[in-house]
Amino acid sequence: MPYPDKILLNDPLDMHLHLRDGEMLRRIAPLSAHTFSGAIVMPNLVPPVTDKKALVDYKARIEDAVGNTPFSPYMTLFFKPDYDMAFLSEMREHLSAIKLYPAGITTNSEGGVSSFDIDALRPTLEAMSALEIPLCVHGETDGFVMDREAQFVPIYERLAEAFPELTIVMEHITTKESVAALDRYENLYATITLHHLYITLDDVAGGLLRPHLFCKPIAKRPEDKEALLRVALEAHPKVMFGSDSAPHPKEAKESYGCAAGVFTAPIALQALAQLFETHDAPLENLQAFVSDNAKRIYGVTPPKKEVVLTKRPTEVPAEYGGVVPMFAEERLTFAIEEIIDG
Amino acid sequence: MPYPDKILLNDPLDMHLHLRDGEMLRRIAPLSAHTFSGAIVMPNLVPPVTDKKALVDYKARIEDAVGNTPFSPYMTLFFKPDYDMAFLSEMREHLSAIKLYPAGITTNSEGGVSSFDIDALRPTLEAMSALEIPLCVHGETDGFVMDREAQFVPIYERLAEAFPELTIVMEHITTKESVAALDRYENLYATITLHHLYITLDDVAGGLLRPHLFCKPIAKRPEDKEALLRVALEAHPKVMFGSDSAPHPKEAKESYGCAAGVFTAPIALQALAQLFETHDAPLENLQAFVSDNAKRIYGVTPPKKEVVLTKRPTEVPAEYGGVVPMFAEERLTFAIEEIIDG
Repeated sequence: MPYPDKILLNDPLDMHLHLRDGEMLRRIAPLSAHTFSGAIVMPNLVPPVTDKKALVDYKARIEDAVGNTPFSPYMTLFFKPDYDMAFLSEMREHLSAIKLYPAGITTNSEGGVSSFDIDALRPTLEAMSALEIPLCVHGETDGFVMDREAQFVPIYERLAEAFPELTIVMEHITTKESVAALDRYENLYATITLHHLYITLDDVAGGLLRPHLFCKPIAKRPEDKEALLRVALEAHPKVMFGSDSAPHPKEAKESYGCAAGVFTAPIALQALAQLFETHDAPLENLQAFVSDNAKRIYGVTPPKKEVVLTKRPTEVPAEYGGVVPMFAEERLTFAIEEIIDG
Repeated sequence: MPYPDKILLNDPLDMHLHLRDGEMLRRIAPLSAHTFSGAIVMPNLVPPVTDKKALVDYKARIEDAVGNTPFSPYMTLFFKPDYDMAFLSEMREHLSAIKLYPAGITTNSEGGVSSFDIDALRPTLEAMSALEIPLCVHGETDGFVMDREAQFVPIYERLAEAFPELTIVMEHITTKESVAALDRYENLYATITLHHLYITLDDVAGGLLRPHLFCKPIAKRPEDKEALLRVALEAHPKVMFGSDSAPHPKEAKESYGCAAGVFTAPIALQALAQLFETHDAPLENLQAFVSDNAKRIYGVTPPKKEVVLTKRPTEVPAEYGGVVPMFAEERLTFAIEEIIDG
């Protein structure tokens, strides 16, 4: 049966998104709000989002940047080991998750966790567990760059065992080891980015070096990409789409020291449609991967949005307001035809 | 015993060097000629050096760029499978080696070899063997970027077995697998770069992405670097220093698609002295690594040059005529005090 020329996606969700702040926020937030119903918004601002005022104010700035487009920014706090029950109880209605970064592992993560001693993390994690606040984790050790995520899997497993009621989301997984961990612990979930479904380290550094494909975790080996593709295309019930779309100005990427992050938000749905078509994967799996799984796992009800994609080329621009997207100046096989809000 | 504050190096040789052509050649050749007595000059110009006129003319341009400084450019031809005995006999006095590139594996290698069928390569390799012309090889397959060199080792072994009288130099080796191959075949030799003795993929992509440390073969794992360090510091008799110093303009490195190559020629001896001091390795090993082994393996007698290094800081400049060197704006612990030619 030929793949359909028209794809309807209901309420797409991006469960891992960097919107930054200030001018960059105003420039890029509308791009996500245009095609997505909602997104888990990462808290790694400078300084990171660690209190109610910072979170509420950031949400207001996002809503202001987005304007009238229906779009739910699902807010997160930057993990601290000593958030107490009183604080988190008060925060519960304002946030959707708490994001844990190992210290210094990626952009603006200097204030992250430097030890994964379970007892040191217990106050916050027990309160989160009781309040049913999901924990999102950037799971990398400080080991060799190709090994960091696989080395972190035992930490995921210790967390999953120590806090069996806690929903733990392994963010932007990139390895077969993380995929395998999904099925070993009931309370482990994962997000997968667009770029890690498309690229390996070969695309970053196998020919010319491609700074716009450089991210953390770095793209891994072919067998890792295959493992990610398998669970994304089958819409494994514990896997959600999270773009990890992270805008950096072109001049910060094409520089002496290039910041980590791939910008995919405005072309993510088109490229996902292309990917599922290429692999002849069922359309209901795409719907589950980009929305339904996330709704169920997070228990969210985003604003209604129907995105209609058709089989005609998207010419990806060279940049969006100074930020170079993935597939810049390339052509994708699906385009957004219509977006019906509400 | 404290490490000496003064190091004398006689006739340093760079057994793998890219001098390019035109304006770039004029800019950078004097930097190598200043501190080195001679260098094996790579033939991957556009078009590559494949005949006598191209080689002789290129040598003249190099000598012109270098001026009066005593410096031997040891010329190489770009490998073709069908060079015949008559041609190579005529060329013998003009060249020091022939460089084999797999097609498309690095900068300006499009005309390289696309099949390693021994019989297809036999005409040239038999003539080289009879004429005692060393074969220099960029040993990478077209596999996954971290695996390419290790995957090439069986090809090195087939070549070494099929042409036991041929001197085969595994160029710029980066893996423990290549190091191990050295001792399995009498006629396998190797060059090692400065940068592969200092960096792993972590330095290229473990923090910010560092385009000026991006090269082919790409820097590998910590255990690979350890294996290279071992044979360099002990001055394994089959190992020679070859910088693979490869200048690209700053704007070509800090760009959308960054070319492969690390520029080290002007700071190589200072950084090697620092490395040997850091590891408390015998000075006679440094002398063997940067000159004596190469003289013996290639049977060359370069012009006399005594380089005196002392224990005082070298402040590495941000660039050399638009080319960013390794260690740019950093400090090395040894400096060149004096160079005595002749």
